[in-house]
Amino acid sequence: MTDSKGFFLTFEGGEGAGKSTQISLLRDFLASKGIDVVLTREPGGSAGAEAIRELLLNGAEDKWDPVSEVLLFSAARRNHLQTKVFPALSAGKWVLCDRFADSTMAYQGYAYGEKSVPLSDIEALYKIAAGDFQPDLTFILDIPVEEGLKRVEARSEAITRFEQMKLDFHKKLRSAYVNIADANPERCVLINAADTKERIHERIVSLVMQRLF
Amino acid sequence: MTDSKGFFLTFEGGEGAGKSTQISLLRDFLASKGIDVVLTREPGGSAGAEAIRELLLNGAEDKWDPVSEVLLFSAARRNHLQTKVFPALSAGKWVLCDRFADSTMAYQGYAYGEKSVPLSDIEALYKIAAGDFQPDLTFILDIPVEEGLKRVEARSEAITRFEQMKLDFHKKLRSAYVNIADANPERCVLINAADTKERIHERIVSLVMQRLF
Repeated sequence: MTDSKGFFLTFEGGEGAGKSTQISLLRDFLASKGIDVVLTREPGGSAGAEAIRELLLNGAEDKWDPVSEVLLFSAARRNHLQTKVFPALSAGKWVLCDRFADSTMAYQGYAYGEKSVPLSDIEALYKIAAGDFQPDLTFILDIPVEEGLKRVEARSEAITRFEQMKLDFHKKLRSAYVNIADANPERCVLINAADTKERIHERIVSLVMQRLF
Repeated sequence: MTDSKGFFLTFEGGEGAGKSTQISLLRDFLASKGIDVVLTREPGGSAGAEAIRELLLNGAEDKWDPVSEVLLFSAARRNHLQTKVFPALSAGKWVLCDRFADSTMAYQGYAYGEKSVPLSDIEALYKIAAGDFQPDLTFILDIPVEEGLKRVEARSEAITRFEQMKLDFHKKLRSAYVNIADANPERCVLINAADTKERIHERIVSLVMQRLF
């Protein structure tokens, strides 16, 4: 779907794992090497997808059932890829994305327990929205649930629908990310996000150098 | 997905075919027989789905590509079925719906020409959103394209993104509906919508009596 010249890097993990911080540090590093970087996020990242993000993240916890959520995330992903990510990659830019398809799988495919969406449906929807496109490299920032949520509280921002969900939900989420990292060793790296932000950044830079340069 | 006791009737067809008029006439007829009727529409019909409808119908013609559209329609359908249609059917009500899955197939599956979405993707999305659920009876109101568009203009309402599209698009749409009716004779009836509204109503009542009573 894209004659990719740049690289697409995704950052995944539970709430408070430090994704934004690491994305920002990596952007600065890449920029210092003369690389043109685009920062983006899912759901959202483009005009249409941000409008869908509004629908998804605001309102009551049971506003959308898990199947509706995956359909909305997929529509947002399609719009985001087509209007922002693919054009940037074709222009040779590197795209750093805060959450992508692994979050959809972890949240809607695993963490909802018996209300989870069948994994085959999630995979079929990914294929419809994105075809064969995959990230070049995915960092999964792993942190104990209580520690992550403590960091979110300390930020004292508005709490979204997903952050409100129960502790058990966030524990399922964490183990889902670990499973995804195990199942996709070529693409994913599990990062211990309880470490200092400087050491995490060093590890990420080292992985980028090894795998993409 | 529902222990249906009522019936689900859908009204399909191009712009200006008279769907709203016929739905309203049938509602009055059914009410006169003591039947509890719910009128609804797609995209929309429930709070979440109406919010998605806003995203879909407003804005520039190329705001969403056909795949994004089908994903959004599917999310809206899921929400509509779960929160409005299934509860009404379970309560023994009859639900009359202005547009449903056949419109998705006709618009995004056929009428977009080479930009159309593969029919297998549209079918897969229907299954994810609605499972095995199907309308009990579908009326496809068929009218020559120029005649339908003339009626839309006479209404002098705001013109939506879909009505703005070119004549050729509306002709493909018409033949798609005819094909759908041919392929699903058990469920669909093609109605000549160039006839008077009284005669169309009589035909619809007679079909409802034959097939559902």
